[in-house]
Amino acid sequence: MTKTTTPTITMITDFGCRDPFVGIVKGVILAVNPAVRIIDLTHEIERHNVEEALYTLSYSYRYFPEGTIHLVVVDPGVGTGRRPLLVEWGNSFFLAPDNGVLSFLFADAGKCTVREITADKYMRKPVSRTFHGRDIFAPVAAWLSRGVSPKKMGPEISDYKQLNIPHLLITEERLRGEVIHVDHFGNLITNIQRKHLEAFEDQDFVVEVGGKHFHGFYQSYAENGSDAPGMIINSFDLLEIFCFMGSAQEKTGIRRGDRVHLYYE
Amino acid sequence: MTKTTTPTITMITDFGCRDPFVGIVKGVILAVNPAVRIIDLTHEIERHNVEEALYTLSYSYRYFPEGTIHLVVVDPGVGTGRRPLLVEWGNSFFLAPDNGVLSFLFADAGKCTVREITADKYMRKPVSRTFHGRDIFAPVAAWLSRGVSPKKMGPEISDYKQLNIPHLLITEERLRGEVIHVDHFGNLITNIQRKHLEAFEDQDFVVEVGGKHFHGFYQSYAENGSDAPGMIINSFDLLEIFCFMGSAQEKTGIRRGDRVHLYYE
Amino acid sequence: MTKTTTPTITMITDFGCRDPFVGIVKGVILAVNPAVRIIDLTHEIERHNVEEALYTLSYSYRYFPEGTIHLVVVDPGVGTGRRPLLVEWGNSFFLAPDNGVLSFLFADAGKCTVREITADKYMRKPVSRTFHGRDIFAPVAAWLSRGVSPKKMGPEISDYKQLNIPHLLITEERLRGEVIHVDHFGNLITNIQRKHLEAFEDQDFVVEVGGKHFHGFYQSYAENGSDAPGMIINSFDLLEIFCFMGSAQEKTGIRRGDRVHLYYE
Repeated sequence: MTKTTTPTITMITDFGCRDPFVGIVKGVILAVNPAVRIIDLTHEIERHNVEEALYTLSYSYRYFPEGTIHLVVVDPGVGTGRRPLLVEWGNSFFLAPDNGVLSFLFADAGKCTVREITADKYMRKPVSRTFHGRDIFAPVAAWLSRGVSPKKMGPEISDYKQLNIPHLLITEERLRGEVIHVDHFGNLITNIQRKHLEAFEDQDFVVEVGGKHFHGFYQSYAENGSDAPGMIINSFDLLEIFCFMGSAQEKTGIRRGDRVHLYYE
Repeated sequence: MTKTTTPTITMITDFGCRDPFVGIVKGVILAVNPAVRIIDLTHEIERHNVEEALYTLSYSYRYFPEGTIHLVVVDPGVGTGRRPLLVEWGNSFFLAPDNGVLSFLFADAGKCTVREITADKYMRKPVSRTFHGRDIFAPVAAWLSRGVSPKKMGPEISDYKQLNIPHLLITEERLRGEVIHVDHFGNLITNIQRKHLEAFEDQDFVVEVGGKHFHGFYQSYAENGSDAPGMIINSFDLLEIFCFMGSAQEKTGIRRGDRVHLYYE
Repeated sequence: MTKTTTPTITMITDFGCRDPFVGIVKGVILAVNPAVRIIDLTHEIERHNVEEALYTLSYSYRYFPEGTIHLVVVDPGVGTGRRPLLVEWGNSFFLAPDNGVLSFLFADAGKCTVREITADKYMRKPVSRTFHGRDIFAPVAAWLSRGVSPKKMGPEISDYKQLNIPHLLITEERLRGEVIHVDHFGNLITNIQRKHLEAFEDQDFVVEVGGKHFHGFYQSYAENGSDAPGMIINSFDLLEIFCFMGSAQEKTGIRRGDRVHLYYE
C-alpha cells in the first residue's frame, strides 16, 4: 500500500441518516485510526438496492486520491454465508459484501485482486450477524488505512459474485441502452456514453424512451430555453435527458430501468 | 482529561440538515480548536424529542475512542432556567441541557461526575436565549477538546433532572418491555436484552405486541425466507422484530412505545 | 492569504444528499489538498433557489475561523457565459457563480475584492459544461487552501451581478419587512433586526403578516406557555414568529416572502 499522510475512507450505505448507524461505523474507524478522514458518498441508497450502490460508486471513486479506501455497505445478506470482500484495484481499495456491488471493477480482471476477508484479528469482537459494517468492514478499513497489508486480511479468491450490468445493444443502425439513474434534479441518466454517440455524429438521430421522442441536443442546461426536455452529454460523459429549471422525470414519467432507443431519423 | 492527539466531538441534534444551524455549531467549534474532528450521529431527532435523543446516544457512545466529547442539543427549554450540563463518565464527556437526556448515565452514579456549566469565559458572547448549541455547548466542547479541565467549567451538582427510562417488568412467567425505536429499515427494536432472554432459553416462548404474535427466532435476517416478520437478537443485544427485505413497521403497524409481552407458550 | 494550519472549506449546494455529487466535490478537493477540512452548511437548498443560498450563507459565514473558504454551488446557469467568481472579503474567501448569490457582500464594496476565475491551470480538465462545482470551484478552493494567492486565479471585475435583497421600508410610524426564511422548526424569520425595533422600544406595537396580528413578545421560546404564536428576537438578532413546541408555519400558514408590517398600536 502506498501510504498517504492523510488516508481517506469513503462510505456508501443504505443506512439513512436518522439512526446513529453511520456515526457508529465512524466511531469504530476512529477508535482504530484517529487520523483517517471519512467522506460520505451517500447513505440514501434505496434499502437493499445493490445496483444503485454499484452505479453510485462506479461514477465516484475515480475522483478520490490514490490510496483511498471505499466502503460499501448495502448488505441484505449480512450474517449468512456471503463473504466480506476486499478488492485492490490500481491504487484504491474497496470493501463490500460479496453481492456483486463491485462488479464494475471485475471487468478489468488483470488490474484487480479480490480477497475474502477472513482475518479475525482485525475484526471487532464479537462479530454480530446483523451489522458487519460495524464489526468487519469498519475495523478492516481502519487497519488498512494504518498501513496493514491487504494480504493479511485474507486469501485471494476468484469465484466472487458478478452482477449483470446493463449492457448496450449496438448495431450499425441503432443503439439500445437504459436509464440507469434519476438524480436529485430529476435528470434521466443513461448508460449511453459519449463515445457511442460519436458514430452517429454526422447524422440526425432521435432518441425514444417509453414512447416519447427526444430531438434537441444541447451544450449546457440553460441553452435549452424551452419547457421541453432536451438531451446533453453530462459531466460523466453519459447521455442525459433534462429539463432546464425543472425535472425531466416529473415531465416525462420515465423511470430508472426504462429502455432507451437511439436511431437514425 | 486524557489528551488524545485528535480529539473527537460527536453531535446529536433535532436541527435537521436544511438550515445551516449544524454547520454554524461546527464553525464555532473550529474557531476555538481547528484540530478537532466532528462526527454527526444524527440531526434528525424528532423535534424536541428528548427520549429519542437519549436512546440514540445510549447505543452509540461506547463505539467512540476514549476522550470523545458527546454534544446533545435537543433543547426545548433553551433560554429558561434549565441548566447546561457537563458530565464526565469514564473517559468520555457529555454536554447537554438538564432535561434528562443523559439519564442513562446517571444510573451508574459512582462513575459519573455532573457539573453545571457556569464559566462565562468559555462561552460565546453575547449568549443568546434561543441557541445555546452555538453559544454555550459548542465553545465549551471545543475548549474541553483543547485540554481545559472540566473543573473549570462549573461546580458539581446532584439535583439534575432524571427521565423515567422505560423499564422491564420481569416475573418468572413473563416479561414486559417496550418498542423503543423503529429504525430506517422499519425494524422494531425493543428494550428486552439478550440476557433477559437467556432465562427463557430452554422453553418455547411467544412474543405479543399490539395483539400480534411472533414465534420465529432467527440468527440472521436472510435466514427468514418468509414474508412474515421474525425475531432476532440484534447487534446491540436487543430483541428486534424484522421483515427480511421489507419493513416490519409497515407490515405490522406497530409503533415506538408499544408494549411487548413475552411469555411461555 | 493568512495561512491557517488547518484551513476550512464550507459548502452550500442544492445537490441533495442522495447522489454522490457532494462526495465527488470533496474527493476533488482532497486530491489537491488532503489536509483541508470540509464542513457542510447545507446541501438542501431548494433546487436553483439562489436567494435561499444567499440567506443561508449570509447568516453563517461569520461563525467560521479567519481564512475559511466558502463554496456556494447553486448554479442554474452552469456552462453558459456566466462567470465563476472568487471574492475576498476581510479574511474570508467566497467562491460562487456570478448569479448574485454573494450580493450581501457587495454592499460593503470597500472591503471586498471580486475576481473572475480564469486560471485554467487550477481547474480540473476537461472542464465540463454541467458540473463546475467539480471542475472549477472545488479545485480552485483546494489550491487557495494550499496558499495559492487569489491574484493568480483571475482579474478583478466590477460588473458582477447583484440581486435585489429585500429591504426594509422604514417611516416614523411603521416598518415593513419580509419573511426571509422558514426554518426546520417552522419558525418564521424576518429581515427586521433588533436595532430597528429599538426605535419602537418604549411604545406598544403590533406586527401583522397576511392578515394575522401578533402581540406577545418573549425572551425565550418556553416563556410562551400558550398555544398561540409569539415573537422573539432570535439568536441572529432578527425578529422571529414562533410557536413553543410547535410550528408557527403550520399554525399560521405564513410563507417565505410574505410581507411583515409593524406599527404602533
